[in-house]
Amino acid sequence: MNFEYSDVCKDYLRRLRAFMDAHIYPNERTYHEQLKSFGENRWQVIPVIEELKVKAREAGLWNLFLPDSDLGAGLSNADYAPLAEEMGRVPWSSEVFNCAAPDTGNMEVLVRYGTKEQQDQWLTPLLKGEIRSAFLMTEPAVASSDATNIECSITRDGDDYVVNGVKWWSSGAGDPRCKVFIVMGKTDPSAETYRQQSMILVPADAPGVTILRHLPVFGYDDAPHGHMEVKLDNVRVPASSMLLGEGRGFEIAQGRLGPGRIHHCMRTIGAAERALELMVRRAMNREAFGKRVIQHSIWEHRIAKARIDIESARLLTLKAAWMMDTVGNKAARGEIAMIKVAAPRVALQVIDDAIQVHGGGGVSDDFPLAAAYAGIRTLRIADGPDEVHERTIARLEAKRWLNEA
Amino acid sequence: MNFEYSDVCKDYLRRLRAFMDAHIYPNERTYHEQLKSFGENRWQVIPVIEELKVKAREAGLWNLFLPDSDLGAGLSNADYAPLAEEMGRVPWSSEVFNCAAPDTGNMEVLVRYGTKEQQDQWLTPLLKGEIRSAFLMTEPAVASSDATNIECSITRDGDDYVVNGVKWWSSGAGDPRCKVFIVMGKTDPSAETYRQQSMILVPADAPGVTILRHLPVFGYDDAPHGHMEVKLDNVRVPASSMLLGEGRGFEIAQGRLGPGRIHHCMRTIGAAERALELMVRRAMNREAFGKRVIQHSIWEHRIAKARIDIESARLLTLKAAWMMDTVGNKAARGEIAMIKVAAPRVALQVIDDAIQVHGGGGVSDDFPLAAAYAGIRTLRIADGPDEVHERTIARLEAKRWLNEA
Amino acid sequence: MNFEYSDVCKDYLRRLRAFMDAHIYPNERTYHEQLKSFGENRWQVIPVIEELKVKAREAGLWNLFLPDSDLGAGLSNADYAPLAEEMGRVPWSSEVFNCAAPDTGNMEVLVRYGTKEQQDQWLTPLLKGEIRSAFLMTEPAVASSDATNIECSITRDGDDYVVNGVKWWSSGAGDPRCKVFIVMGKTDPSAETYRQQSMILVPADAPGVTILRHLPVFGYDDAPHGHMEVKLDNVRVPASSMLLGEGRGFEIAQGRLGPGRIHHCMRTIGAAERALELMVRRAMNREAFGKRVIQHSIWEHRIAKARIDIESARLLTLKAAWMMDTVGNKAARGEIAMIKVAAPRVALQVIDDAIQVHGGGGVSDDFPLAAAYAGIRTLRIADGPDEVHERTIARLEAKRWLNEA
Amino acid sequence: MNFEYSDVCKDYLRRLRAFMDAHIYPNERTYHEQLKSFGENRWQVIPVIEELKVKAREAGLWNLFLPDSDLGAGLSNADYAPLAEEMGRVPWSSEVFNCAAPDTGNMEVLVRYGTKEQQDQWLTPLLKGEIRSAFLMTEPAVASSDATNIECSITRDGDDYVVNGVKWWSSGAGDPRCKVFIVMGKTDPSAETYRQQSMILVPADAPGVTILRHLPVFGYDDAPHGHMEVKLDNVRVPASSMLLGEGRGFEIAQGRLGPGRIHHCMRTIGAAERALELMVRRAMNREAFGKRVIQHSIWEHRIAKARIDIESARLLTLKAAWMMDTVGNKAARGEIAMIKVAAPRVALQVIDDAIQVHGGGGVSDDFPLAAAYAGIRTLRIADGPDEVHERTIARLEAKRWLNEA
Repeated sequence: MNFEYSDVCKDYLRRLRAFMDAHIYPNERTYHEQLKSFGENRWQVIPVIEELKVKAREAGLWNLFLPDSDLGAGLSNADYAPLAEEMGRVPWSSEVFNCAAPDTGNMEVLVRYGTKEQQDQWLTPLLKGEIRSAFLMTEPAVASSDATNIECSITRDGDDYVVNGVKWWSSGAGDPRCKVFIVMGKTDPSAETYRQQSMILVPADAPGVTILRHLPVFGYDDAPHGHMEVKLDNVRVPASSMLLGEGRGFEIAQGRLGPGRIHHCMRTIGAAERALELMVRRAMNREAFGKRVIQHSIWEHRIAKARIDIESARLLTLKAAWMMDTVGNKAARGEIAMIKVAAPRVALQVIDDAIQVHGGGGVSDDFPLAAAYAGIRTLRIADGPDEVHERTIARLEAKRWLNEA
Repeated sequence: MNFEYSDVCKDYLRRLRAFMDAHIYPNERTYHEQLKSFGENRWQVIPVIEELKVKAREAGLWNLFLPDSDLGAGLSNADYAPLAEEMGRVPWSSEVFNCAAPDTGNMEVLVRYGTKEQQDQWLTPLLKGEIRSAFLMTEPAVASSDATNIECSITRDGDDYVVNGVKWWSSGAGDPRCKVFIVMGKTDPSAETYRQQSMILVPADAPGVTILRHLPVFGYDDAPHGHMEVKLDNVRVPASSMLLGEGRGFEIAQGRLGPGRIHHCMRTIGAAERALELMVRRAMNREAFGKRVIQHSIWEHRIAKARIDIESARLLTLKAAWMMDTVGNKAARGEIAMIKVAAPRVALQVIDDAIQVHGGGGVSDDFPLAAAYAGIRTLRIADGPDEVHERTIARLEAKRWLNEA
Repeated sequence: MNFEYSDVCKDYLRRLRAFMDAHIYPNERTYHEQLKSFGENRWQVIPVIEELKVKAREAGLWNLFLPDSDLGAGLSNADYAPLAEEMGRVPWSSEVFNCAAPDTGNMEVLVRYGTKEQQDQWLTPLLKGEIRSAFLMTEPAVASSDATNIECSITRDGDDYVVNGVKWWSSGAGDPRCKVFIVMGKTDPSAETYRQQSMILVPADAPGVTILRHLPVFGYDDAPHGHMEVKLDNVRVPASSMLLGEGRGFEIAQGRLGPGRIHHCMRTIGAAERALELMVRRAMNREAFGKRVIQHSIWEHRIAKARIDIESARLLTLKAAWMMDTVGNKAARGEIAMIKVAAPRVALQVIDDAIQVHGGGGVSDDFPLAAAYAGIRTLRIADGPDEVHERTIARLEAKRWLNEA
Repeated sequence: MNFEYSDVCKDYLRRLRAFMDAHIYPNERTYHEQLKSFGENRWQVIPVIEELKVKAREAGLWNLFLPDSDLGAGLSNADYAPLAEEMGRVPWSSEVFNCAAPDTGNMEVLVRYGTKEQQDQWLTPLLKGEIRSAFLMTEPAVASSDATNIECSITRDGDDYVVNGVKWWSSGAGDPRCKVFIVMGKTDPSAETYRQQSMILVPADAPGVTILRHLPVFGYDDAPHGHMEVKLDNVRVPASSMLLGEGRGFEIAQGRLGPGRIHHCMRTIGAAERALELMVRRAMNREAFGKRVIQHSIWEHRIAKARIDIESARLLTLKAAWMMDTVGNKAARGEIAMIKVAAPRVALQVIDDAIQVHGGGGVSDDFPLAAAYAGIRTLRIADGPDEVHERTIARLEAKRWLNEA
């Protein structure tokens, strides 16, 4: 047993932190001011992001998430996890390192399952950070927590496929650089349940694609990224756009899933860690009733709970990452389900307490807390609500005793 | 002991509900669409509000909060409380009945403490719903949870007072109809602690008044109401603008406090009640894993908890209102502190569960849940954070045993 | 709306409190010492109880629970509730006033459904406090939370019924004065579900009755009351022992239920109230890190929460009692389910915090806290576990929207 | 980073589990029956324990806790931790492997700080499992959470020390085999705060030692181990009984502390793990409302939460153990404080849920749940209450920002 990060991880972490200190934290205000300066015209690229991307790439902090060393940094899940945590401290910073969702998951899909042609067209510019992408899965009309409910149709018509459906929570589809969608839909409603769905590549500017609206999250539009409702109306794409083959949508979804959860959870822990830092500093700097807030035992209690819960969630996530690296996604599916429930639960409580100690400032945008709360609250719903993962965990427990019960 | 609402309360409640059914709920979408149609130019009156105000006044549902029967409906706190709950189901509806904060508190101050001149100038148009008002108390530079920290200065200069300071969370100051501020500030820093502060009337358009910015709550700007940061730079007002007399700010604050807390808490309970309704209906209408969501025992648990907690918080608030009516604010201060802590705590949990059952829709603006969460989250901070009220309650407990301990 | 107790309630409460001060609290130690002095031979009457019963009867504090004024005090549920709370402060005190479970419920059954003969034989001595009784319902072999599962058989044989089964958690059956059991069992397994069960009177000394063992609650045996496992092996009783008629067991159970829940919940609130008193006093009297424990904000927080939660649970229970009095058990079934869940939940948290502030003393028997915790923990299970009542509450919520959903 | 247990740990774990399966679980009933058969005469050795000790020693499962390989198994904290967890599944099993508190801590003290003479007299028979020991620290008269409050006096008188004081929660002092106490007391009240206290060896049968009473824990006497209140009345011991030297009591306490917390926390996790197993099995085997309890989503939720929380607490504890092994107790003091708060918190919730699913059986002694709850509840108080450890954690957080705040 060894809880120490590997040397390669520690080296990247050191360099990443130096970059954050030099370029990310000092630009947090700039980011928001540039966005604000756009006024209503918010769905455009924020200049500071593009400037920092150049710097990050020069610093060798680029595509860190990719385990494939020819294309990315070649880090294991366990080695990348602490880097994802660090990026989670500033929500927009992942993009600077070309490590932002949903591009990361989409790039992995293309690396694993894309044809040479698909890779040339979409993977190459994604790896360079020239374009962005979206993942169109969830639909407003059905309970998408059960992915078999998805109704978007993908129909073969000669050398093309024709796609029809309405998707929402298509995150990133608001960005003008977003050029391609991976769309999940039904190719064969009569096939067995897990062979009905396929994934297909759809250019964002294909005729028939309409962005209906953006969906706010607790009042935030998350521009220019955004969470879009997208209509696909007789969208026609060449048959070569199919990923892996008809009926293999769930197979791709499974492969895409694990690493993304590690990334999300570690970023969530990074957000919690930063909230704790803000909570402690604020409590040290404010006085109430004759002493510093941090000397009041209710805050000792909350700070201690935050520290315990963050450490616990981090260890749980690191173990899940390590298991994915050593025994694979399937054997680690219990652990992956656990962190999906645990990390947001922990972070939301820490951030909420941090909001409380900041008073009015906490709910406003003077601190990154309210926005972090809103963003992380969605994680209890996105990619399967808590209840679905709890079900998975409980069933794995039951399995242990099935023959004996 | 009798838990039944009085006849007069029941009559108003019946009429209010009929009005809500006929005019408020059907216009919820209209309200948001009119606001949205303003685009960036959001700080203006929403037409549907003014239309409905006329209707409400005609229906005799106007100034219901005022216990003074010449000016308002003459209802006791206990009789008004259930009406406030009903209005709380739609956040903007209170204004339709001229029962919206902070006008209600400000009108009460003017009724109780205003001179004839002050009343003619400000109370009369407020009662008519022609103008709105703001209450400028909290300051960004100090821990305002301890109101003795407030630093804004009010200095006598000949026949005038000169006001200097920066206030924030001045709710409603974003509205173009907001014509007057009640400002808390120090007239005599050398007086004993609770005699240093005064309250003074300041016209919103007085020279030296600058709205610096609006403060979002989570991502909501709450336009056109808004929560503003306001600079008062050598703002000069006639000496007759002083309320009650120099050094009597805390006295006024005390008198203003109790009823406002009842209103806030009952509206909060109304919001929780509506969230529960939405939660139940959604759980009845969605299927997951082969049965309706409401048949899953985790939702039975959450719905039951919501019902228990809402009933409890309502009874606690009604009792506080009844005590204010029967034994007065001072004797009821423990109960008032209790509801200030309990009502938001209950409502936030109910709304959070309601969000969860709505999936992606829950965090967006397709349902009124995320906005309700954000708004009510501020109540754990505004008007004294939880910790201050808990301190009050604990001290009252200690007093019971002081001579015996 | 009026939260004041009635005059008759206040008068009884004043007299009850005086009695508690004069006779109960001063004898708490005596009670435990007398019990302890029995050593292993614990299943016998504790002398101080019998002495105090005489005094209570003389003081007119006897059979207070009975709404029938010829037999008891003639108090409504709402008027009796505050008295039950008061008794709940000392677990054994109810018996002093002949207001202890399960006798209260059993007496109510006999008053409502007993024949003259049954009443003469069993009700009269119960009302005089000469004998005690038990209620045999739950069985070890089945999930008794669903009462239709109960398997004990009651078979007609000539002029007799023959009873066979094993019951457990037969509280009070350990007491040598316990002379009669009300037994629930199946008379007709082929009848429709809710007509299969009957209730029958069985003398405790009938041939075939064997007390198999006592069941401890945590480490408490609750002697001499006790919670017994009882075997009924071909127990023969005259046919006149049947209550109300064959197949009417559920009807009786329903009638027995409501008032008993009010009693239990109010006693639970009394226990919570006492725990809060102990918590506050202890926190006032101990120093840690340079100041009194009560001045530490974590204890302000816990004390405030305790006060809020106790007040809320009390109001909820009083409202349930008032509804039973005014609209009946059936219309109040939601409220009765709510208090069944809420009161133990609140009390357990308050008692747990009180234990914490007492340190080592808290878990021992130097204070009545650990024993109260153990006793009240059973209430989340007994008489239907939380989950069953939450189900009831959720279904009532669903009903409200059924036609509209 | 590597979450795999070491080979030596895995080997011991395999053998320990085999021993548990072969000898401990099959004797759980025997243990309780033998104890029960003693009746009132409970403070004597339970035969099965002595029989199993022989077997365990033969199996090479003896003194596993001792890092010193000449005397014990020579395992690191990280390697011993999983073994402690395993033993925690059956509370009395640790003693079988001579790994029970407080002997383990006392042996460590003697190994580290004892003279040859002290070791010959007390360590040797303790290592052989021939005698047992107690640790006398806490006092009823003072808030012992602040150890500087301890008042027991140890006065030099010629070649002897004379000890006077009253101690309580002297666990294990009820056992007839308990032959020696380590007593903490003041040798020099005028010294600086952390040099006033010393530790001294006192034979259990020294004149002046009186066991005043045993302290129950939620009704359990924990015989024959027990938690005793002990009077030391002019107890005279030779000066050579002093440990390490006058004024070094805190130094010894510090050294004794870390490993003991790892042991306690891992045993606590073992108890939680077993409770989860019982909860899952019960939920699989019982039906309610037409399906198995485990298929109800409220139990999926509770089981998942239990699994997440147990995994988290285990990882946190293993990391604390690993830090103690690699960077030492002092650097690990934050982690040690964290597990002291986290492990009991987690276990109590899991056990409480397990009790709930067992219904009446859960609070009785038919399952080991209620007893586990009671025992673990004391851990939130013993060895410093939660609040003290939370204070430590919060202060360490503050230190991180002290120069920057």
